[in-house]
Amino acid sequence: MNIDNYFKTRRTVRRYSSREVEPQLLKEMLEEASHAPTTGNMQLYSVIVTRSEEGKRALAPLHFNQPSATGCSVLLTFCIDYNRFVKWCEASDAVPGYDNFQSFMTGALDTCIFAQQFNTIAEMHGLGCCYLGTTTYTAPEIAKVLNLPKRVIPLVTLTVGYPEGDAPLSDRIPVEGIIHEEAYHDYSVEDIRDIYAEKEAREDSRKFIEENGKTTLAQVFTDVRYPRENNERFSKIYYDFIRENFLME
Amino acid sequence: MNIDNYFKTRRTVRRYSSREVEPQLLKEMLEEASHAPTTGNMQLYSVIVTRSEEGKRALAPLHFNQPSATGCSVLLTFCIDYNRFVKWCEASDAVPGYDNFQSFMTGALDTCIFAQQFNTIAEMHGLGCCYLGTTTYTAPEIAKVLNLPKRVIPLVTLTVGYPEGDAPLSDRIPVEGIIHEEAYHDYSVEDIRDIYAEKEAREDSRKFIEENGKTTLAQVFTDVRYPRENNERFSKIYYDFIRENFLME
Repeated sequence: MNIDNYFKTRRTVRRYSSREVEPQLLKEMLEEASHAPTTGNMQLYSVIVTRSEEGKRALAPLHFNQPSATGCSVLLTFCIDYNRFVKWCEASDAVPGYDNFQSFMTGALDTCIFAQQFNTIAEMHGLGCCYLGTTTYTAPEIAKVLNLPKRVIPLVTLTVGYPEGDAPLSDRIPVEGIIHEEAYHDYSVEDIRDIYAEKEAREDSRKFIEENGKTTLAQVFTDVRYPRENNERFSKIYYDFIRENFLME
Repeated sequence: MNIDNYFKTRRTVRRYSSREVEPQLLKEMLEEASHAPTTGNMQLYSVIVTRSEEGKRALAPLHFNQPSATGCSVLLTFCIDYNRFVKWCEASDAVPGYDNFQSFMTGALDTCIFAQQFNTIAEMHGLGCCYLGTTTYTAPEIAKVLNLPKRVIPLVTLTVGYPEGDAPLSDRIPVEGIIHEEAYHDYSVEDIRDIYAEKEAREDSRKFIEENGKTTLAQVFTDVRYPRENNERFSKIYYDFIRENFLME
């Protein structure tokens, strides 16, 4: 396998064939992913595998009925999990102190690294995956459907299956736009224009602007895709859920 | 390359030879990593490359003088970056609404996925990497050293270089301990005992317990490595920093 070629040409896959991801293969890939870096080797995560039609149908509305949620072979909900670790502490005469924001962040990083490692492994095996960003929006309801106990917080969801048809290759801003040598060099208006010029000039961006009745590409993000009112509503839902089920003040 | 073999046998590398990671190779690997999944293709991250001796010496105490911070060829600080995105919005007649917790989480996931993709690419190129978990502990001081503006939050740091000597292979709990089919199945005391049995029986764990003057392995985590008082102190530091520089209430 040409690794450079894989990383540069990987793509998000939202449409899947009916071919099943075999349970044994899934388990092996998750086992490989568990060798990803983890803070202090604590492995502060769990993954819930939804393979049944009923399970997918129960979760689909919580992912705003994105077609990949029911069209995939398996849907994986990656959760920060301090429940297992705290139970181990309590069974070992150890007094845990993880009901705080720093521990939440540690768990979030562990979980995200594990999920992304799985994503790469699955794609390298010819599978297609798609992250569902809705997981942090509807976490309290996802937790109910998946029967999550306290100290277990849904973080990201991946839909997984064999690709159907061709998925488009996404553009990226020039890498110079994200690298800073030795210290952060703030962007001038000209820098910003240069960094986003190619993206704005793309045919699909122009179409996107027109379809949404906007005049700039950035407005599609601020007014349609990620508007303030949604961000603030979902912030409250997620933070309240973390407070009640994790921080437990 | 046998990909299964790589993922199962990868290891964290903390000791590096004097061989430099060439700037061109680093840039190419960061470019490849930028093709990792990102929410709505927003790429809400920046990376600060510290290659100079002065730069590493300034950051080393903020990473508790872990030897890899100065012994590496380059130290990469991965930051959540809404500064660039907000500047793009403002240059595009778009009104951003990202000063909230949900947007922080979105940026954290984007940044962590990018960092982990880089970690995998670098390791596949024969380089060694180590995450420094201290980044969220000392973020305000790191931000000062790296001249970060508002809306840019340090999240994770990777030290990178060519490996010197052999790095040990870390153990992991059995994968059955992290997979839940269809719904979360809570752990009984027996389950916990089974999941952690192998880890507790390891020679290095026993040594670790003895060196720290404890009676169980879990106590090394709760009393020595990640004690409540540290977690709470660093929680306040990080959350206050996010509030002032990102949420800006």
